[in-house]
Amino acid sequence: MESSTFFMSLALNAARAVKGFTAPNPAVGAVIVRNGNVIATGATSPAGGDHAEVHAIRAAGDLCQGAEIYVTLEPCSHWGKTPPCADAIIRAGFAKVVIAMEDPNPLVSGKGSSRIREAGILVETGILSHEAQRLNEDFFYYITHKKPWITVKLAMTLDGRVADSTGSSKWITGPASRQFVHELRAKHTAIGVGRGTLESDDPQLNVRGVEGKNPIRIIFTSNEHAGESSWFRTHATEERSIMVIAKRGEQHVEVASDGVELWFTGTSDRKDSFERFLIMAGENQIDSLFIEGGSKLISTLLEMKAVHRFYLFYAPKIIAGGIEGLKIPESLPMNHPIELENPEWKQFDNDMMVTGLAKWQ
Amino acid sequence: MESSTFFMSLALNAARAVKGFTAPNPAVGAVIVRNGNVIATGATSPAGGDHAEVHAIRAAGDLCQGAEIYVTLEPCSHWGKTPPCADAIIRAGFAKVVIAMEDPNPLVSGKGSSRIREAGILVETGILSHEAQRLNEDFFYYITHKKPWITVKLAMTLDGRVADSTGSSKWITGPASRQFVHELRAKHTAIGVGRGTLESDDPQLNVRGVEGKNPIRIIFTSNEHAGESSWFRTHATEERSIMVIAKRGEQHVEVASDGVELWFTGTSDRKDSFERFLIMAGENQIDSLFIEGGSKLISTLLEMKAVHRFYLFYAPKIIAGGIEGLKIPESLPMNHPIELENPEWKQFDNDMMVTGLAKWQ
Repeated sequence: MESSTFFMSLALNAARAVKGFTAPNPAVGAVIVRNGNVIATGATSPAGGDHAEVHAIRAAGDLCQGAEIYVTLEPCSHWGKTPPCADAIIRAGFAKVVIAMEDPNPLVSGKGSSRIREAGILVETGILSHEAQRLNEDFFYYITHKKPWITVKLAMTLDGRVADSTGSSKWITGPASRQFVHELRAKHTAIGVGRGTLESDDPQLNVRGVEGKNPIRIIFTSNEHAGESSWFRTHATEERSIMVIAKRGEQHVEVASDGVELWFTGTSDRKDSFERFLIMAGENQIDSLFIEGGSKLISTLLEMKAVHRFYLFYAPKIIAGGIEGLKIPESLPMNHPIELENPEWKQFDNDMMVTGLAKWQ
Repeated sequence: MESSTFFMSLALNAARAVKGFTAPNPAVGAVIVRNGNVIATGATSPAGGDHAEVHAIRAAGDLCQGAEIYVTLEPCSHWGKTPPCADAIIRAGFAKVVIAMEDPNPLVSGKGSSRIREAGILVETGILSHEAQRLNEDFFYYITHKKPWITVKLAMTLDGRVADSTGSSKWITGPASRQFVHELRAKHTAIGVGRGTLESDDPQLNVRGVEGKNPIRIIFTSNEHAGESSWFRTHATEERSIMVIAKRGEQHVEVASDGVELWFTGTSDRKDSFERFLIMAGENQIDSLFIEGGSKLISTLLEMKAVHRFYLFYAPKIIAGGIEGLKIPESLPMNHPIELENPEWKQFDNDMMVTGLAKWQ
């Protein structure tokens, strides 16, 4: 590995460690290198706090003079809640700035790096840009579209079933897979399931067994009275909890007595309702949504081509019937499937996971 | 890796290289080591020829005196088509014999190693025994049950489909997966598909793109006139070709004018017919059968619990409908599935394969 790739991979690791905590900012990492040695690292603070570069510069102090800084995203050049990082970098006296990728926001893209370059500092870009893009794919999508990035996770048998004919689905995959799912939950702003899953699994929709913040909880239903005695409804005060209700009438929001926000989308059509939800979610700063089922909700998302990334887990077992995880009324032809772009396969004990971007034809 | 494990793994590699060529003998490998150096290797010859030990001993000559021999299966102690290997080992003057596993045939198990031990030679067993068992699992099953070992291979989308709603299945997986399937074909004595696959795919059922012998070709059908103009029927003289016909009447065999053997099982019940076929196949020295579809034939085998090992390939695509690869009329409960024992996952480019022993509940 070239040394610049190595230092950028350290910066990416620093960014990954704060992924899920940094909204409304992207997760960014920075590493400062002097004479070939790492002298400081930094990552974005939660909730509008300091950016990664500022943390690293503060830690390195005077040693920044003449050093190199590796940043996973182009330093900002504008005043937000904090001053521009480009200025902080120039003031610190770096000899070289290495940037994984330019800011994809067309309004600011390239501005930070030109400002640094104009100050006479060497700027290099495009080191591990694919990994940097992947890390904040949800954030980049959200700032462009003002709608949440949709991740779908399913745990299936080898024959593609998520439950048997009685509806039982506990547990398909093993503990190592399930722990990784909790890590994924922590990296998303919200987590959602359909009414069927609410009623059959009584899920907690929180992060357990790993470090991480609990996501906002969302149930998709056509009935605002669904799951009255469920864990979700009886624990709604612990974390922001939303029911998205596909029902004809006026689009409005009210709060139920148990604390659940009821988002009436105003239409009983599942697809229209989800489309309206996406806009409402965007307005509520929900930039990413982790959908864990059930198969009916996922079917709607497949029909809408609304999924951005899949995480599919397979346990080494076959039930040869029951409820299919991925099914739409009009199935796709074999030569025009949904493809998983850049698929990454990863084993968890005896289970296998594949993740990839959904490439819609 | 301990040196004994290392030398045994070399012997296993020698055995793997001849797997599929050694019927009616198991595929065995032998490695002779003197002063820590490999001085000769051997593997079973085809069709009743010399055993692995004899090849290695012949190659090492006088240097066997005081050396060690690593063998993947207990040396035989009886006269078959060739003299007992145990005697050849004793005569060669080895100081030590290392055996991966004892012969599982209860009639001879332990006899070869005791004879060698009684001659004053040090014998060690159980080195890489799991791998040695796996290599000849089909052979060991056949000599015990006199019926073929059944391997099922399926290539599926991530949602478990083998074809779209029009029946199209070409090609689900990529070239690397398909090449590995040809390697698997070469390691089986026979290859079989159902009538639907014969008619929709017109398969050649031979080994292409890799070294290996063509297996015996078998079609399962209820109609002896199926696929009259198919590649299978018009090339029946190139390789032994069999149609297994599930039809009421007398159980008998005849040869069609195109050279296809017609095995009438005498019953129209799919399961009874397959059961009778297994006995006929055993009598015909068909010790292993590689089933590549279609889903109807595989459904019958699942209902019969007749599958011994699965090879399931997944391409990173979703069609969300169409023909399911693994389906039976009465699906299994999630807590009593068919489990794949010791699952091994292997990536082929963007595809994933899992193989494991079918563990029936």
